[in-house]
Amino acid sequence: MAAIIPQSLESEINIRVSKIAESLKKQNVDAILLGSFANVYYASGRVFSGYAYITCDGSVTYFVKRPVALEGENVKYIRKPEQMPEIIGKMPTTIALELGTVSYNSIERLKNVFNGATVVDGSVIMSQIRAVKTEYEISKLKTSGIHHETAYGNIKKVYREGMTDVEFQIEIERILRNEGCLGLFRVAGDSMEIYMGSVICGYNADIPSPYDFAMGGGGLDDSIPGGCNGSLIRPGNTVMVDMCGNFTGYMTDMTRVFRVGSIETPLALKAHQLSIDIHHRIAEIAKPGVEAKMLYETAMQMVKDAGLEDYFMGHKQKAGFIGHGVGIEINELPVVAPRSKDVLAEGNVIALEPKFVIPGVGAVGIENTYVVRQNGLECITNYPEEISELY
Amino acid sequence: MAAIIPQSLESEINIRVSKIAESLKKQNVDAILLGSFANVYYASGRVFSGYAYITCDGSVTYFVKRPVALEGENVKYIRKPEQMPEIIGKMPTTIALELGTVSYNSIERLKNVFNGATVVDGSVIMSQIRAVKTEYEISKLKTSGIHHETAYGNIKKVYREGMTDVEFQIEIERILRNEGCLGLFRVAGDSMEIYMGSVICGYNADIPSPYDFAMGGGGLDDSIPGGCNGSLIRPGNTVMVDMCGNFTGYMTDMTRVFRVGSIETPLALKAHQLSIDIHHRIAEIAKPGVEAKMLYETAMQMVKDAGLEDYFMGHKQKAGFIGHGVGIEINELPVVAPRSKDVLAEGNVIALEPKFVIPGVGAVGIENTYVVRQNGLECITNYPEEISELY
Repeated sequence: MAAIIPQSLESEINIRVSKIAESLKKQNVDAILLGSFANVYYASGRVFSGYAYITCDGSVTYFVKRPVALEGENVKYIRKPEQMPEIIGKMPTTIALELGTVSYNSIERLKNVFNGATVVDGSVIMSQIRAVKTEYEISKLKTSGIHHETAYGNIKKVYREGMTDVEFQIEIERILRNEGCLGLFRVAGDSMEIYMGSVICGYNADIPSPYDFAMGGGGLDDSIPGGCNGSLIRPGNTVMVDMCGNFTGYMTDMTRVFRVGSIETPLALKAHQLSIDIHHRIAEIAKPGVEAKMLYETAMQMVKDAGLEDYFMGHKQKAGFIGHGVGIEINELPVVAPRSKDVLAEGNVIALEPKFVIPGVGAVGIENTYVVRQNGLECITNYPEEISELY
Repeated sequence: MAAIIPQSLESEINIRVSKIAESLKKQNVDAILLGSFANVYYASGRVFSGYAYITCDGSVTYFVKRPVALEGENVKYIRKPEQMPEIIGKMPTTIALELGTVSYNSIERLKNVFNGATVVDGSVIMSQIRAVKTEYEISKLKTSGIHHETAYGNIKKVYREGMTDVEFQIEIERILRNEGCLGLFRVAGDSMEIYMGSVICGYNADIPSPYDFAMGGGGLDDSIPGGCNGSLIRPGNTVMVDMCGNFTGYMTDMTRVFRVGSIETPLALKAHQLSIDIHHRIAEIAKPGVEAKMLYETAMQMVKDAGLEDYFMGHKQKAGFIGHGVGIEINELPVVAPRSKDVLAEGNVIALEPKFVIPGVGAVGIENTYVVRQNGLECITNYPEEISELY
């Protein structure tokens, strides 16, 4: 038997539950039912199969299907969701369900379980709550950042002349895994799927992908058309490394660029420096209360001033954002995009990735993960920002 | 520009579209709209962001959001689903949508797009169609199987004395990736997530997990509680290797057991041999027209006759199935479980995994992937079935 919430996490989970209860109260919602792995993990500190049921009064019931042998006053084992009402007793008049993440059939089934209740979207509620990290969550992210940095420090050691992008990526995956990377790259929604991140080299940076990532890549197979495509790593091309930083259940996002020999194209060097400059500029102005779209506009103005719009956030195909929240999932709020309605709050954790695709060279630019603090951004992925030579 | 369907795949996609159209006609459904990556891949041979719209007359329109630059007579670029009706023209009276896989919000949006149409569940339709593979799909699965076998042949080479399960798994991941494994382990539904498979050693086999896999394992972190947990690989314990066979977009599933030194527990040896015997018995009786639950019952009877029920499909926590279809996703139809309503058909591809957890030793038993043929099962993951020694 194991306690559903380890003693060391009790006060942290209380904080999170209070945040959820407060948000429900504000929106006149009686209760929320969370069944997605990401939200169950947030509400309990562990992934289980079942539901966390939280009321606006702050009471929690964990309805567990699997695994067996979890303990706690508020743990109730069920085989199916239809068993919940009897245990809940006084049923809610308004219930929040995860309409944005859970399948239509599963929601219809839950609507029947909460028969007669008004249903509101709990996915939105949870995204907004999870966008503002607790100090404990920030410490988890910082730990991920430190391992991420350490792993990136070993990337140059595994390069061998004549490698393809995928061969290089496989060695980087091994470095990350040996450093403690859990592998899984949790993404929200249906528009993305990924295996451990991407290593994109040379012309492949300009091959469009179906996924909503900042950069594309053709991939190794039409079944997973993104990332490395088996290209030889050639002198004069860049190798962009954007690999998974999930060491703690909380993910940092970090991109760095490598090269073999020298990059002779002034356009590429200029664009890479501009990416760094954008980071530094945004790190100063991104404070609580600032609109996320302002960060996008600031970056875009700097890009326009430099005459680099054609290459910004892709060339043949462009991504529509330059940053996103990170945490339990890699695509959280706030979104740093032109039409974002998000306003920065202290405790947001965002990955910024102003990147460029330079034809004939490849992708340039960096990505870092930052905590939004009172006086600007605190970087938690510190690693040299210039293009590093592989040899 | 690239053709949405490469010339070499045209006749194959025609076959698949005909199967879908025929099924729609049989069920009096006018059209189906597919947007999940797995079904889009099935309907076009490539993953894109958007929808495949197929009518009961066999006409297909590919509505593409990303990537740019796909070509074809029936390719229409859209930014949002609301643009489809104008292109479709005569709207369907009955439409199948992926109710079992796509989020509630996305389906509600699509219901508005097909305003007034009766909506039926397209997820079920597609699962049933995809359960019967074409010969081309079987060739893809066979190719995966051959690479899977080759990779498993290298597992013993990377074992070093004193390794933990995760260190061993990382080296196996690298073998698989270097053999061409695409990494991504596509699973259907909300009840599973996994990173490249699992290596489970000794007592960890008996730690229950929340996921719907045959075996559990505590995992390395409460955020992903399944698989290896950092245990030292000890003499007298088994190491069960159940790693991802996705080399072609189509996945084979194969499990083998390794040991350090000798396994002295007769119970473990008996159970492993029984697993092999179950495979051979089922391979003879599993023919088109046989109910999938009969295979389960046959296995269970053999287990009962041997007095090994306590250990079958887990010990503290048990899995409710011994086999499942595989293909584009790792959990397809048919399901080999006591209450399965599936009936075997020629061209089903199933992974059978009658496994045991023996306290004090670990997990034993094997898993193979088979094609259902007229006269029984054809194994496509051929690798020695006995427990192999690591040294």
